[in-house]
Amino acid sequence: MKAYSLHALAGMLNAQLRGSAGLQIHGLGTLQNAGPGQLAFLASASYRKQLVDTRAGAVLLRAEDADGFDGNCLVVPDPYLAYARLSHLFDRKPVAQPGIHPTAVIAASAQVAASASIGPGVVIESEAYIGDNVTLGAHCFVGARSRIGKDGWLAPRVTLYHDVTIGERVVIQSGAVLGGEGFGFAKQDGEWLKIAQIGGVSVGDDVEIGANTTIDRGALDDTRIGNDVKLDNQIMIAHNVEVGDHTAMAACVGISGSTRIGRNCMLAGGVGLVGHIEICDNVFVTGMTMVTHSITEPGAYSSGTAMQPAGDWKKNAVRFRQLDDMARRIRALEKNDRK
Amino acid sequence: MKAYSLHALAGMLNAQLRGSAGLQIHGLGTLQNAGPGQLAFLASASYRKQLVDTRAGAVLLRAEDADGFDGNCLVVPDPYLAYARLSHLFDRKPVAQPGIHPTAVIAASAQVAASASIGPGVVIESEAYIGDNVTLGAHCFVGARSRIGKDGWLAPRVTLYHDVTIGERVVIQSGAVLGGEGFGFAKQDGEWLKIAQIGGVSVGDDVEIGANTTIDRGALDDTRIGNDVKLDNQIMIAHNVEVGDHTAMAACVGISGSTRIGRNCMLAGGVGLVGHIEICDNVFVTGMTMVTHSITEPGAYSSGTAMQPAGDWKKNAVRFRQLDDMARRIRALEKNDRK
Amino acid sequence: MKAYSLHALAGMLNAQLRGSAGLQIHGLGTLQNAGPGQLAFLASASYRKQLVDTRAGAVLLRAEDADGFDGNCLVVPDPYLAYARLSHLFDRKPVAQPGIHPTAVIAASAQVAASASIGPGVVIESEAYIGDNVTLGAHCFVGARSRIGKDGWLAPRVTLYHDVTIGERVVIQSGAVLGGEGFGFAKQDGEWLKIAQIGGVSVGDDVEIGANTTIDRGALDDTRIGNDVKLDNQIMIAHNVEVGDHTAMAACVGISGSTRIGRNCMLAGGVGLVGHIEICDNVFVTGMTMVTHSITEPGAYSSGTAMQPAGDWKKNAVRFRQLDDMARRIRALEKNDRK
Repeated sequence: MKAYSLHALAGMLNAQLRGSAGLQIHGLGTLQNAGPGQLAFLASASYRKQLVDTRAGAVLLRAEDADGFDGNCLVVPDPYLAYARLSHLFDRKPVAQPGIHPTAVIAASAQVAASASIGPGVVIESEAYIGDNVTLGAHCFVGARSRIGKDGWLAPRVTLYHDVTIGERVVIQSGAVLGGEGFGFAKQDGEWLKIAQIGGVSVGDDVEIGANTTIDRGALDDTRIGNDVKLDNQIMIAHNVEVGDHTAMAACVGISGSTRIGRNCMLAGGVGLVGHIEICDNVFVTGMTMVTHSITEPGAYSSGTAMQPAGDWKKNAVRFRQLDDMARRIRALEKNDRK
Repeated sequence: MKAYSLHALAGMLNAQLRGSAGLQIHGLGTLQNAGPGQLAFLASASYRKQLVDTRAGAVLLRAEDADGFDGNCLVVPDPYLAYARLSHLFDRKPVAQPGIHPTAVIAASAQVAASASIGPGVVIESEAYIGDNVTLGAHCFVGARSRIGKDGWLAPRVTLYHDVTIGERVVIQSGAVLGGEGFGFAKQDGEWLKIAQIGGVSVGDDVEIGANTTIDRGALDDTRIGNDVKLDNQIMIAHNVEVGDHTAMAACVGISGSTRIGRNCMLAGGVGLVGHIEICDNVFVTGMTMVTHSITEPGAYSSGTAMQPAGDWKKNAVRFRQLDDMARRIRALEKNDRK
Repeated sequence: MKAYSLHALAGMLNAQLRGSAGLQIHGLGTLQNAGPGQLAFLASASYRKQLVDTRAGAVLLRAEDADGFDGNCLVVPDPYLAYARLSHLFDRKPVAQPGIHPTAVIAASAQVAASASIGPGVVIESEAYIGDNVTLGAHCFVGARSRIGKDGWLAPRVTLYHDVTIGERVVIQSGAVLGGEGFGFAKQDGEWLKIAQIGGVSVGDDVEIGANTTIDRGALDDTRIGNDVKLDNQIMIAHNVEVGDHTAMAACVGISGSTRIGRNCMLAGGVGLVGHIEICDNVFVTGMTMVTHSITEPGAYSSGTAMQPAGDWKKNAVRFRQLDDMARRIRALEKNDRK
């Protein structure tokens, strides 16, 4: 296991070191669970009391929290950010070696960079392009004419259909499907007629796509994911959706066709959006909210009802169905009241 | 890239051609984005103003919209349907060649039609049957005794467990799982005892199943999907559900065990249904609705609350928990009022 | 097809047999659909009237239901439990033979028990461990240092990343992903900085994990699933969630990061939980409930509104946004009323 001296870590972070510079740090942990060889962090004043009992070998903290603390510490302006930066030192995620596994099946017309790592059972179809230092985990499928920019990392079992374009430094987790055929059907004499989905998917740089997330190809134009977009697991993005730069979505969000989402938005878990609406920049939507119309002002938005014991809830839920009637009765009472 | 003369397209659609019959069309596009070699369509009067500025080489439109328009056009009774039909001409989805990829693993007792295309790494188990002109994408798995009718198309990485029967012309997108073991457990002395799921899955003709959708096998009898059913991505269909012909479901719908859904229904995205209920024919359920009881009358149904700014929402959500109390107080006021 | 005499089945269940001991039973069915060679069960008094018309060869029932019944039957204290136990006799799920398929790719440093069955295209990475009698279906991926305890059964196409530890007798359905990188990012100068997810996943004994369910690895410590936990399909469990023993979750549940769920809980379909909360033991949450705070008392909990015709719903949904105002107006009316 790799280890770093506290002195070395201070250097990487440009942090002020208090205590034992030679202490060897071989991992990270929470204040509660870290041991003597581990570095913990105090990200928020609300955890300050855990500082007293921590067994951590050293702690990342702010100057104002360091003063009462007599253990080893690295003083930084933003301990959470410092932890984020150091986390990569201690990541045991295997690093794949360049080269093509003998069981991979690669079309003659596909282009694969010599520095790329192509895992067992990977299938790459005609005219696809795999850039420098890209890793494709086992059983990945890259369809015809699809392109993955340099430094991408695809976990085992990611599917890209044909004509999917991925930017640089993109990470895609297992089970994600990009370029599946969007849900387009026209009714003809009582039966569904399929509409071919002839657009593609276009994904920017520095994007992260979670496990089992699906991004459908466009009907005519591409479905578009901007730069630095972060998508958690089991998200569903329908055909021709557009997502702006730096927007993040937690798990289980579903976005219907042709909806456009701005930059720097955050959608919490389980949020659903109807199709053909626009969400402006800098919008935050709380968990499980049903978004039924466009949002034109930055800010936080919500829907739903708050949880309560099921017996009470049943009574209130019955009343919800009478709400319009209740409102009219209040109005009537007010009229009488004023007489 | 394939191209068709406007004259040829008019012939396919039995459309009236106005303008340049020899114009070569090599793609489709929206009124907004189509270029000079592309055909656009005006599906709804609300987009009529886009007709003025369109750069499209030609437009599909109704007779009443054609009169003010002096560009090239094909006059048809239903432009959206005409677009749906033509879309397949311009689909760049690769067409697989008949034959079995050398890396496929096929049980000796399985039957695979000579016209079928079996991709790299596909696994087909004992006594399975693959019909004429079926395409199995890379890494598909077809379990023992499962059957896929003629002209089926399975994207890469589709899993059919054993005893799953698929009709003709069925399309299944990547990551779908058919025949997984339904969620059946009995409590015994505080522990869960698994109930073997000995039914199968039965899927009709002309069905479409979306990416990462799951359809569990039946506990005793089969889970049944009718003809011409269209299922979007990430839908969950539990054991012994039955879905009637021509019913369509948008993404992220979840249906609990043994629920029966009629014909010609539409479930919008994120709808959830409890188990053991029945939905009659011709029901439309709006997005994210929680369906807790049977529906016996055709029509549209909804639940949930409408989105609003989070600050306002919090105040109203608190009041929801007082709704029954509010209703009683209105009643009391009314009694006094009448005195 | 296997068959068992009614006498033999009575012996397995320690049941009282009434009727033809030699009757050959070759399957199970519902009272409604079972035929003469099948055994049905009467689990609840509400289905008692189906007893009259059943064509089942024999029926599992309670002593009090047996008295009016003159067909063949096995009298047991809990017919549903008896059915659960017998169901495994009639399961046609293929049993894999021990051995490693020649197309599997197994690291030299991995340990695979001789009694394990490793399917086509399976990939097992360095220092992984596969215990006795474990079945890995086709295309499973087991990452570095991951461990699967004895008698485990993984369907085709299950992904375990590195450092995922699975107990004994664990069943995992197709498409499940364990150990995907949790959704951890810090904002730095308007861009997202990824936090390496250096914890693993730890799963207890006798756990069942459904199709396309995702369980992310921990940020620092492990994500933990207790013993005898049952997870249905398309569930999302975020980093550092902890789930207590015997807890069951229906499909499409989503649990945000670091939330702790107690023992013997049941979460119905589509429930969502925010992060960093605690749910005590013995809690039942009804379908699609949004859980926004900790639950400290056992019992049943709900949220949401009940479905109604869409026209009525629209009127009431508008009023929801006025609820706080309505409550204030009731208060004002009451004040005047008391004067």
